[in-house]
Amino acid sequence: MSEQQAFLEAAQSSLGARGLTQDLDLIEPWLTDWRGRFQGKALAMASPATTRELADLVRLCAQHRVPIVPQGGNSGMAGGATPDESGQAVLLSLRRMNTIGAIDVNGRKVTCGAGVILQTLHEAAEAEGLRFPLTLGGKGSATVGGLISTNAGGTQVLRHGSMRALVMGLEAVLADGQVFSMLTPLKKDNRGFDLKQLLIGSEGTLGIVTAATLKLVAAVAERVVIWAGVSSVQAARTLLLHCEDAAGDALEGFEILPQASLEAVIDHMPSVRPPLAGAHPWHVLIEVVADRSGAERLRDLCENMLEQAFERDLLDDAVIAANESQAEAFWLIRDSIAPAERARGPAVQHDISVPVDKMPDFIDAAVPHLEAQWPGTEAIAFGHLGDGNVHFHVIAPQGSDGATWQQGDGKAISRQVYDLVGEWGGSISAEHGIGQLKRDDLARLGDPVALDMMRRVKQALDPLGILNPGKLL
Amino acid sequence: MSEQQAFLEAAQSSLGARGLTQDLDLIEPWLTDWRGRFQGKALAMASPATTRELADLVRLCAQHRVPIVPQGGNSGMAGGATPDESGQAVLLSLRRMNTIGAIDVNGRKVTCGAGVILQTLHEAAEAEGLRFPLTLGGKGSATVGGLISTNAGGTQVLRHGSMRALVMGLEAVLADGQVFSMLTPLKKDNRGFDLKQLLIGSEGTLGIVTAATLKLVAAVAERVVIWAGVSSVQAARTLLLHCEDAAGDALEGFEILPQASLEAVIDHMPSVRPPLAGAHPWHVLIEVVADRSGAERLRDLCENMLEQAFERDLLDDAVIAANESQAEAFWLIRDSIAPAERARGPAVQHDISVPVDKMPDFIDAAVPHLEAQWPGTEAIAFGHLGDGNVHFHVIAPQGSDGATWQQGDGKAISRQVYDLVGEWGGSISAEHGIGQLKRDDLARLGDPVALDMMRRVKQALDPLGILNPGKLL
Repeated sequence: MSEQQAFLEAAQSSLGARGLTQDLDLIEPWLTDWRGRFQGKALAMASPATTRELADLVRLCAQHRVPIVPQGGNSGMAGGATPDESGQAVLLSLRRMNTIGAIDVNGRKVTCGAGVILQTLHEAAEAEGLRFPLTLGGKGSATVGGLISTNAGGTQVLRHGSMRALVMGLEAVLADGQVFSMLTPLKKDNRGFDLKQLLIGSEGTLGIVTAATLKLVAAVAERVVIWAGVSSVQAARTLLLHCEDAAGDALEGFEILPQASLEAVIDHMPSVRPPLAGAHPWHVLIEVVADRSGAERLRDLCENMLEQAFERDLLDDAVIAANESQAEAFWLIRDSIAPAERARGPAVQHDISVPVDKMPDFIDAAVPHLEAQWPGTEAIAFGHLGDGNVHFHVIAPQGSDGATWQQGDGKAISRQVYDLVGEWGGSISAEHGIGQLKRDDLARLGDPVALDMMRRVKQALDPLGILNPGKLL
Repeated sequence: MSEQQAFLEAAQSSLGARGLTQDLDLIEPWLTDWRGRFQGKALAMASPATTRELADLVRLCAQHRVPIVPQGGNSGMAGGATPDESGQAVLLSLRRMNTIGAIDVNGRKVTCGAGVILQTLHEAAEAEGLRFPLTLGGKGSATVGGLISTNAGGTQVLRHGSMRALVMGLEAVLADGQVFSMLTPLKKDNRGFDLKQLLIGSEGTLGIVTAATLKLVAAVAERVVIWAGVSSVQAARTLLLHCEDAAGDALEGFEILPQASLEAVIDHMPSVRPPLAGAHPWHVLIEVVADRSGAERLRDLCENMLEQAFERDLLDDAVIAANESQAEAFWLIRDSIAPAERARGPAVQHDISVPVDKMPDFIDAAVPHLEAQWPGTEAIAFGHLGDGNVHFHVIAPQGSDGATWQQGDGKAISRQVYDLVGEWGGSISAEHGIGQLKRDDLARLGDPVALDMMRRVKQALDPLGILNPGKLL
């Protein structure tokens, strides 16, 4: 009996029919990432129902040297949850581990399984008058485990931080099948290394997240959504500083987009109406929120904030959404930039960050630089100015063949973008992670000392290399 | 020539006379921790002036297998900066690396060397209208490097977090002399493992912190300090939830102490007047602050908050400090508990945490339990209720001989306290770290899986074991 066969028989008897399948019809949909950029094969798909079952499976994998590729909602952006083409790995679905514990209203926290879908978590928190503040486009499929493994971001990071800041307690299965069990949240704990943060964002290469205790915040009692037109990214940044001063912790979102992105959205969705009458080089979407205790004075605060901004000449035009449906219409524009850009033709996309205060200069330098070097391309930066993180897309010249362009000029452009980011002291992955998409770029551009530390830690915690091999490092 | 002699000659020629000394008069004051509980010997004291000098020194240490004990202000609480008695180690002072960079007022950050003293940092930030929010008793000697290495806490953690939350960028020298260089702060960066957080709180066992970029916050424009009397810790916790709802992010401090601690302070410092007329089982010190934008309505907010608390029967009595000098007098009581307790006689002290919502039940259970088991002792819990972290002191029976009691009953009591903390899912070190003081307790009570992970990471990053040996693990 081959090693693989021995493993499969042992795993089958441990997990049962629901917990392990080799049926390609069942496995196939999970072997390609949602954007269709990566495709792999798998020996089998395991779907354990409990941490104990998963720990047993990992022990079997270690014993038989079978690699494991953990997967949540398969909505990652970097191919981190797609197995390679060897067909040697077990694809591990965490989706059955989807229990949500009782919401602790006083303690503002909840413990849930890795397979809980973000939107389900949102709804559970809302039902108790609370809120889980992290949100992103893939919320209908992204799972808690995947969000933790990739330290996901989104549009509310400005105030609430990325996933890293919202995990109070963590449980994970390690490479030898031991269970790291720190679900009980302690606000202060100085018993040595921060292993919880080491596991968060490690993309399943150091351990497999099975459950977490997550922080909840007060529900939004009122929100004010503002659309402003400004003359430059630098003006947007000055406006951001003004809003931070005026609104403090109530400032929850601050997103920028160029006029071209607004026009792309309007072309793509003709029902969308531009929020402001005229054209502006840059647009800013601002969200200010209040929980119950501050709701009554929120609108006044925002009106004063804008009035002062006009007086100080920080913006050219602005409008406050008159009601919740207009507020949603403003956000729809922001959320439609990526699909609208995609509809325009082939492009290469980059999720990058530089120091927050350097982002205006970076955009002003990088956009013309790239457009000059590759004539006919259009470079577009939009997104989370307050986090120093934009999505930097470069669109192919009109009439380019998608696949050919992406493999040729597209690759060269990405390389150039990442080189520029490195020169500016930035990161080639602000919120999407490394996965297999950026692994070679990280090896090329990452700090050699940091890479060496990471490889040592990986070797120490997964000496057999069975946890998500080929990803990140 | 012995290995030690060869090392000393090479180090002397690399560091010069100011950078390396064997003069016992100069070294001696740093060989004992400030509380006089640990004493050691050193081969020499090194005081490099730059990261480069330190990196060269560490390479020499690795080459000659000379252990290194890093030290900042020598104000740690767990003996983490005191060498052992073998005299084999170099005592490494970071105190010459005390440069403070220009304050970035817009970006609210500053880069400074590991040797910068906390109070100096406070003053530098204040001079620019900003604030570094972490503060603690030892601020006149504690250094940035030591605060980072121990992930220090203090009284403002409730709002601003411990040191971990305030480090935006970090530089450290690793065990092989390589320099980990991540001083440029990126708000979002998902390029693999969070090495920065791994180094923070590792007590110099994984790397030596040489510099950091630290977060600054708006200066306090106004503060309101409240003293309240409540009937129980549970009542204090309910009051805390009320204040969190009412004041939101403006709530900066929430400290508790029992009537006995107040009386001990008054005995110790007869000039202190009790803030409230009568006695109360428990007292609460509340601080609410506002920066410029919220200053005008802060007092109203606090008065409303207290009024509602009275209506809801959440407290028995309360007073708002009439002016800044009364506010300082309230805080002086809080800050004098530890010295007042010490003046009463021998005691054993424990810096512990349990889940925030469990702290009232823990105190109500642990205090009578310990006092019953060791008749004549008095157990006192005071401190950071909002963080689930109290200082739990057990005072010896009247007339006990200090040293004898501490070595006998004192040790047994500490063991019992830590066992109880473990049963409640808590931590035997909330904010002081492990050092040598609690190393054996951690080995005994720590989660075996977490300890195993820590040992693997330590072995991977410091295979020769030269970084602060005998501490933490």
